[in-house]
Amino acid sequence: MIKDPSEFRFEAHRMADRIADYFEEITRYPVKSRVKPGEVLSLLPELPPESPEPISGIMADFERVIMPGITHWQHPNFHAYFPANSSYASVLAEWLTAALGQQAMIWETSPAATELEERVMQWMKQMFGLPEHWTGVLQDTASASTLAALLTAREKASGFSINEEGFAANSKLRIYASSETHSSIEKAARIAGFGRKNLVKIPVDEVFALDTAALEEAILRDKAAGYTPCCVVATIGTTGSAAVDPVRKTGEICSKYNIWLHIDAAFAGTALVLPEMRHFADGLELADSYVFNPHKWMFTNFDASAYFVRDPEMLIRTFEILPEYLKTRTRGKVNDYRDWGVALGRRFRALKLWFVIRNYGTEGIRTTVRKHLDLACWLSDQIQRSADFELLAPVNFSLVCFRYKPGHITDKETLNQINQQLLTRVNESGNLYLSHTMLNGSFCLRMVTAQTYLEKHHLEKAWHVVLETSKTMSDERNMG
Amino acid sequence: MIKDPSEFRFEAHRMADRIADYFEEITRYPVKSRVKPGEVLSLLPELPPESPEPISGIMADFERVIMPGITHWQHPNFHAYFPANSSYASVLAEWLTAALGQQAMIWETSPAATELEERVMQWMKQMFGLPEHWTGVLQDTASASTLAALLTAREKASGFSINEEGFAANSKLRIYASSETHSSIEKAARIAGFGRKNLVKIPVDEVFALDTAALEEAILRDKAAGYTPCCVVATIGTTGSAAVDPVRKTGEICSKYNIWLHIDAAFAGTALVLPEMRHFADGLELADSYVFNPHKWMFTNFDASAYFVRDPEMLIRTFEILPEYLKTRTRGKVNDYRDWGVALGRRFRALKLWFVIRNYGTEGIRTTVRKHLDLACWLSDQIQRSADFELLAPVNFSLVCFRYKPGHITDKETLNQINQQLLTRVNESGNLYLSHTMLNGSFCLRMVTAQTYLEKHHLEKAWHVVLETSKTMSDERNMG
Repeated sequence: MIKDPSEFRFEAHRMADRIADYFEEITRYPVKSRVKPGEVLSLLPELPPESPEPISGIMADFERVIMPGITHWQHPNFHAYFPANSSYASVLAEWLTAALGQQAMIWETSPAATELEERVMQWMKQMFGLPEHWTGVLQDTASASTLAALLTAREKASGFSINEEGFAANSKLRIYASSETHSSIEKAARIAGFGRKNLVKIPVDEVFALDTAALEEAILRDKAAGYTPCCVVATIGTTGSAAVDPVRKTGEICSKYNIWLHIDAAFAGTALVLPEMRHFADGLELADSYVFNPHKWMFTNFDASAYFVRDPEMLIRTFEILPEYLKTRTRGKVNDYRDWGVALGRRFRALKLWFVIRNYGTEGIRTTVRKHLDLACWLSDQIQRSADFELLAPVNFSLVCFRYKPGHITDKETLNQINQQLLTRVNESGNLYLSHTMLNGSFCLRMVTAQTYLEKHHLEKAWHVVLETSKTMSDERNMG
Repeated sequence: MIKDPSEFRFEAHRMADRIADYFEEITRYPVKSRVKPGEVLSLLPELPPESPEPISGIMADFERVIMPGITHWQHPNFHAYFPANSSYASVLAEWLTAALGQQAMIWETSPAATELEERVMQWMKQMFGLPEHWTGVLQDTASASTLAALLTAREKASGFSINEEGFAANSKLRIYASSETHSSIEKAARIAGFGRKNLVKIPVDEVFALDTAALEEAILRDKAAGYTPCCVVATIGTTGSAAVDPVRKTGEICSKYNIWLHIDAAFAGTALVLPEMRHFADGLELADSYVFNPHKWMFTNFDASAYFVRDPEMLIRTFEILPEYLKTRTRGKVNDYRDWGVALGRRFRALKLWFVIRNYGTEGIRTTVRKHLDLACWLSDQIQRSADFELLAPVNFSLVCFRYKPGHITDKETLNQINQQLLTRVNESGNLYLSHTMLNGSFCLRMVTAQTYLEKHHLEKAWHVVLETSKTMSDERNMG
C-alpha cells in the first residue's frame, strides 16, 4: 500500500509516462475493443485480495486484463455515437481535481470550486453567444440537466404543489418533443412521474426537424381534452441525424401557451462558438432552460454538462432542502450549487473547463470546431461523389449520416442488412468505430468527425476502409 | 495549447510533482478556506480568454487564485460533515480514468469498464458480508442510489404503471423514514413525484434510531386512510449522529406489509468490513436495496456510490429505454449499466475501486477502519473525562457528537450560542474543520475521525485546539 508522498511521487511519475505513452501510441490500438462478453470478467479473480498489492502489480494486470477491453474513445478514428472528448489540458486538470478531492456541494466546502464554476459558466455564455440574462450551473450529464428542466417545469405548472403534495391534483401534465428526441427525455418524464404516455411525440419534417404546426395542434387538442401542456423539449442537433428543431417558432408557441421551453443542444451546442453557426439557435432567448455538454465536443473530460436557466430562483425552489447539518453562515450570500440539481455531492468540475478554455483560448476552440465541420463537409462530398453511397440526412454539424447503396439493390430490407454487415465489418477491422441509427426505416451509418485529435489523414484513411470494405462485400456477393 | 504527447509528457511530470508536493505539504494549509464570499470570483477575469495560454500560466493562477479558496478535504484534520476521502492509489487510478476517457454507458462502449464494475461489486459483497444474492452497480452519489430505490419501489407498487401512465391512478403512495433521515430521501420523494407530504417522518428513540412501533402504527393508520405504503428507508449511520435504525425489525414490518425496504448506509457501510461491526446490519438480507458510498470512508475518490439490489430485473425495468442508436449485437448477453440508473453517460468508476481494493487489500481497509474507530473511542473518552464537555449521542462509528458545557451554564440557548461560537473559532484557527448538527434542540459539534491520513497525533492536536479555544472563551466570559 502506498503510505507516503514520496512513494506517491515515484508512482505518479511512472503513471505520467504510461499515460503519455498511451497518447503517443493510441492509433496502434484497435478503436473498438475486440473482447468477447465475459472475457475480461473471467480474467479477474472471483474473490477480493486479502493482502495489499503494489501499484506495479495492479498495472501489470491493467495491461493484461483491462486494456484489451478498452474501446478507445480518444482515438482519432472514434467516429461512433457522439464523442466523449477529452484533451491534454483537460486530463491534467482532472489529475488536479482528483488530488484536491473537493466536495463542491456548498460554497463553504469549496469556495474556489463554487466561484470558479460561476465564472466559467459566465464565460461560456460569452463564448457561445447565449442570452446575457441566463444563469449557468454544471450538472453531470444531459440526462440530469433535462431532468432538472422537466422538474422545474412541473413545479412551475403546478404552483410548486407536486413537490409538496405529489401528483394527486395535477396529474394531467403533458410534455412535447419530436419523434427524434433523445431517450433521456422519456427517461426524465418517467422519473419525474409524468409517465411515458404524457410525453407526446410530435412528427418531424423531411429533414427530421420538429413539425411546429403539428406541435401546436397537439397542444390545442390536449388543452381541449383537459390536459395542461407543461413543457416542450426542442433539440439543436438530434442524436440520430443532428437535425435542428425550429427554435424561434417553437419558442413562440411556448410563449403563446405559457409552456416551459427546454433546449437540448447536448452535442451541437459547442458549434455555437462559431458566429456563422448561430443561425441554428435563432430564438434561443425564448427558452427557459438550455443544456449543452462540454464533455462531448468541447475537449473536456466526461462528466461536464452545462445547464443554463432563465430563472435560477425557480430552479433552486425546485431542489432546495435545508437540513441543520448543511446550514452555514454564508447561506443566501453565495451559490450553494447542491440546490441547483439532483445530487448533493458534486465534483470540482469547473477546474477542467477553466484549463480547457484557457489552454485552447476561445480562438483555439473555434479553430478546432471549424476543422471538424470542414471534415464533415469533405466526407459528405466523398459520399455524394460515390455512386454506391448516399447521404440520408443534411449535414448540419460534424455528423454524417449515410448508407451503402449499390446501384442494383433497391429492396429496403436488403439494404438494411448490407449496411448492418458493413458496420460490423468496419468496426471489426479495428481501424475505425462507427455507430448507426434508423432514419425513415433505413439503417443508417453515423460517422462523427469531432474527435479531439482527428486530422484529415485519419478521416481519409477511415473513408478508404469503408470504401474497401464495401467493395469486398460486393465482390463476395458477385462470387456467391 | 498542448498539441502533442511530448508536450503533454513534460506537463504531466510537472503536475505529478506539484501534486506530490501538495500531499507532502497538506498539513501546512488552513483546513478550511479563509476566503470571503466573492473573493475568488473577483480575481477571475470577467471575459473568457481569446488566445491560448500555456499550462504554466494557468498553474500560476491556480496557486494565486484557486488554492486560497480550497478547503482541504484530504487534510488529516478535516473532521467535518462526512469525509470525501481519496487515497494515493485512488488518485493514480483517477489519472488513468481521465486519460482513457471511457464512456461506460453500455458494454460495447467499454467492455472492460462494464466487467470490472461487475467484478468489484461482487468483491464488495464479500468484503462487507452483504447478502450473496444481491447484485451491485455503481451510481454517482447516494442521492442517485436512493432515487433509484424510490423509483423502483414506486414502479413495483404501481405495477409499473406510473412509468407508463403517470401518477393519476396511483397517487396515494407513501414513504417512511425516521426524523433523522438524510435530506436526500425528501429530495428523491419530491423528484419522483410522491410529494414531501407523503414522506412520513417517524419519531426516533433516545439514541436517535427509528421507533419501529411508531413505524408500524403509521403504516396501519395510512392503510386505513386509503394510502399505499410503498417504501421504508432505514439508515445505518445517520448523518446527524451516526444512529442505526433497527434493520431486522424494520425489515420484518416491511415483509409483513409488502413494502420496499431501502437501507442507507452511505457513510457507515464501510465499517461492515469488520466482522465485529456487522451486528449493526443484522437483518440486512430483508432489504430490497442498499447503498453505501466508497467515496466517503473507503479511500476512493468522489464519486463512487455502491448500490445493491435484490432484484436487478426490477431496477432495469424501471430505467430501461432502448432507442435505435443504442441497440447493439450484445444486448441481453451483457450488463448495459445505463439501464441501471438515472444517467445515460457513465464514468469508468470501477477502476479506482479496483486500485484501492488491491493496493490496500481487504486487510489494509480493515486496519485503517479499525484505527478510525479506535480514534473515535479515544476522543469520546477525552470528552467524557472533561468536566466541561459532554457527548450528545452514542459513538457507534467514527463520528463523535459532543458539546462544550461549562458546569455553571445550563440554559439551552446560551449553550447553543457558545457552541456555535466555539465551532466558528475552531474552524477559523485553520487547525481543524468541524461541522455541526442539532440533536434534541441542542447545538452539537460533529467530529469525524475517518480521514484517510488521520493519525493519533493529528487528533490529539485537534482535541487540544478545541480545549484551548474553549478555555479562551471561558476566560473572556470571566473577564467580560
